[in-house]
Amino acid sequence: MPSDESFVAVTCTAPVNIAVIKYWGKRDEELILPLNSSLSVTLHQDQLRTTTTAAISRDFLEDRIWLNGQEEDVEQPRLQACLREIRRLARKCGSTGDEDQHLLTPGPSDRVHVASVNNFPTAAGLASSAAGFACLAYTLARIYGVEGDLSEVARRGSGSACRSLYGGFVEWQMGQRADGRDSVAWQVASESHWPQLRVLILVVSAERKPTGSTVGMQTSVQTSDLLKFRAEALVPARMAEMARCIQERDFPGFAKLTMQDSNQFHATCLDTFPPISYLNDTSQRIMQLVHRFNAHHGQTKVAYTFDAGPNAVIFTLEDTMAEFVAVVRHVFPPEANGDKFLKGLPVTPVPVSDDLKATLAMEPVPRGVQYIIATQVGPGPQVLDDPDVHLLGQDGLPKPRPAA
Amino acid sequence: MPSDESFVAVTCTAPVNIAVIKYWGKRDEELILPLNSSLSVTLHQDQLRTTTTAAISRDFLEDRIWLNGQEEDVEQPRLQACLREIRRLARKCGSTGDEDQHLLTPGPSDRVHVASVNNFPTAAGLASSAAGFACLAYTLARIYGVEGDLSEVARRGSGSACRSLYGGFVEWQMGQRADGRDSVAWQVASESHWPQLRVLILVVSAERKPTGSTVGMQTSVQTSDLLKFRAEALVPARMAEMARCIQERDFPGFAKLTMQDSNQFHATCLDTFPPISYLNDTSQRIMQLVHRFNAHHGQTKVAYTFDAGPNAVIFTLEDTMAEFVAVVRHVFPPEANGDKFLKGLPVTPVPVSDDLKATLAMEPVPRGVQYIIATQVGPGPQVLDDPDVHLLGQDGLPKPRPAA
Repeated sequence: MPSDESFVAVTCTAPVNIAVIKYWGKRDEELILPLNSSLSVTLHQDQLRTTTTAAISRDFLEDRIWLNGQEEDVEQPRLQACLREIRRLARKCGSTGDEDQHLLTPGPSDRVHVASVNNFPTAAGLASSAAGFACLAYTLARIYGVEGDLSEVARRGSGSACRSLYGGFVEWQMGQRADGRDSVAWQVASESHWPQLRVLILVVSAERKPTGSTVGMQTSVQTSDLLKFRAEALVPARMAEMARCIQERDFPGFAKLTMQDSNQFHATCLDTFPPISYLNDTSQRIMQLVHRFNAHHGQTKVAYTFDAGPNAVIFTLEDTMAEFVAVVRHVFPPEANGDKFLKGLPVTPVPVSDDLKATLAMEPVPRGVQYIIATQVGPGPQVLDDPDVHLLGQDGLPKPRPAA
Repeated sequence: MPSDESFVAVTCTAPVNIAVIKYWGKRDEELILPLNSSLSVTLHQDQLRTTTTAAISRDFLEDRIWLNGQEEDVEQPRLQACLREIRRLARKCGSTGDEDQHLLTPGPSDRVHVASVNNFPTAAGLASSAAGFACLAYTLARIYGVEGDLSEVARRGSGSACRSLYGGFVEWQMGQRADGRDSVAWQVASESHWPQLRVLILVVSAERKPTGSTVGMQTSVQTSDLLKFRAEALVPARMAEMARCIQERDFPGFAKLTMQDSNQFHATCLDTFPPISYLNDTSQRIMQLVHRFNAHHGQTKVAYTFDAGPNAVIFTLEDTMAEFVAVVRHVFPPEANGDKFLKGLPVTPVPVSDDLKATLAMEPVPRGVQYIIATQVGPGPQVLDDPDVHLLGQDGLPKPRPAA
């Protein structure tokens, strides 16, 4: 067992982000450079987060990694790209692993053990890889003493991970350079900019997604003419318009463009050959529900967006959240365990008016939505100071996980 | 009751057509001029047809029309446009309604009674309006003695109706003129050109379609940037390639492009705001089934296409039809009345190999597909000579309909 003196550990958390202008398709598979810029909202870590511990000890003979308690192959290319990149930056930052400072700043050549856990189901279409690689980049940077922007480290793990490096509203600018150095994330507005904004995740299915996004993107780039047109001709103006909506807290504008961009992303998936379909009948019903809810109110009070899976992410304002949750309960009646239907932020139950029910004109379908997570905009990655939270023990192995 | 001498009736039938390069969106709503050219396959009238009787009598005081036994408002604009157009052509053809020739050639100013029936469910996404208006144009032309191309008459009723004026493989060229005179249908290849081609209609739902195609197209033209790009930049090359595939009887090429164009059409529907979705989970399963079936065989042996509804139209060759029908029966087991599951052309039952079932890897879902209609490529409109088939009696009113 390594002695205390040669063991250093850092534990950080990182958030999930949800794109409102979607990223789909790479112009460089190796460097993970996107076909177009994208813009996302960072969700609060009180509800959804990845926690990662990185530990270094002179006694470690090799890099090792555990995800949700299971050891994974450390040789997987994307993980290796992150590790190479952070060590390159560590060398650049002058972190040489000098003997005297060893306890504070391990050197780039030191082997690292990493353990990471999500507090939400992996691969359920909730962008777990984005939070995971952002957390990895952030934690490795802390332990290797790397300062400055970590977009490239996170991006090499999973493109959209660079957007989880910041809180609030984040743009990943596609960049122009062949080496990708200008393909970086930056904060458009902080997490305190629009405090009324609320987010509801409608978990439609926790099954693994049918087509992984890496393979899906490749097929789309190869076969969809609509995707190329969207990326080149349509996204630039949408990026500018979305940034304006956020700056001005223009909810109807933000909501409409969010829905349009989600739909256009899924349109390019359908234009892919063979076609990719992430939306199922429940997703479609949720879309219809949102449009009818807005029509009833005569204004755009709620927006949906869907990533590479059937789950809906709903944006609304504080004053509308309770009514929309009630409407979801009406259209998708929860099963017997109705008390577990709503997780996250508390939402006061309100009735749905007969008038609204009549406008919706939708027959209730039990079990369409499994549960709802209510959350809001949140900050970027955080360092946890309490050594008790480390996921790795002094022996460099994962601690036994507490019962859920 | 009018006397025999002053009563003339003509009865014709016309086919349904299925577009393999899709029409969606008008550049002129009044003249019904399309944003892009389209190409269709005419289905055989042994299985799917509209039958229309037009009758003229000096005793008729007004134009009247009955659809499937119900009298309809003859003032509806599209019907009026057809009637105006056929009377304009009748005057041009010199059919003046001369007294001596009256029994053979009624004049343009004579009032007409029309009765029309489909032998398939109306508005079930089977392009009933195309067959209906083609049959109307063709029947009116016979009774008013109009010769030549009837594209404009049919088109004014329903755009795609002009494609039902010909058998085999038909192009509706978009045309360039503002008055629409060059927006006409013509036959790319006759119904005897590709005798091995077979068509299966998988009826998924006979409910009325959620968004009518007229309104849907308008919304798409107003809101979908992808639709404009498709129409201008992509369809012209697809038209040429589809014509080549048909001329050369290149089934894999025909099949792949048919699927791609169906998917792209539905992609532009999804890019519409609010989005339009005609494909449901059963439609998606059929698409997946086709791709897996083709993957199993290592070649494209089957294609799907979907119009403005969830029903699938399947193209395949004679030698593959029995196996594909068996596969549909396997994935969508018929209800108790399994003997009514397959209508139209006879198909010999064959077993599905365990190997194929394993490749499909799809759990059977009862009641997904209601029934299948097996058909093939067929001829254009026909005149029926037997006066017993007239849908209108000598009194100018619909005859009692025979029990189904």
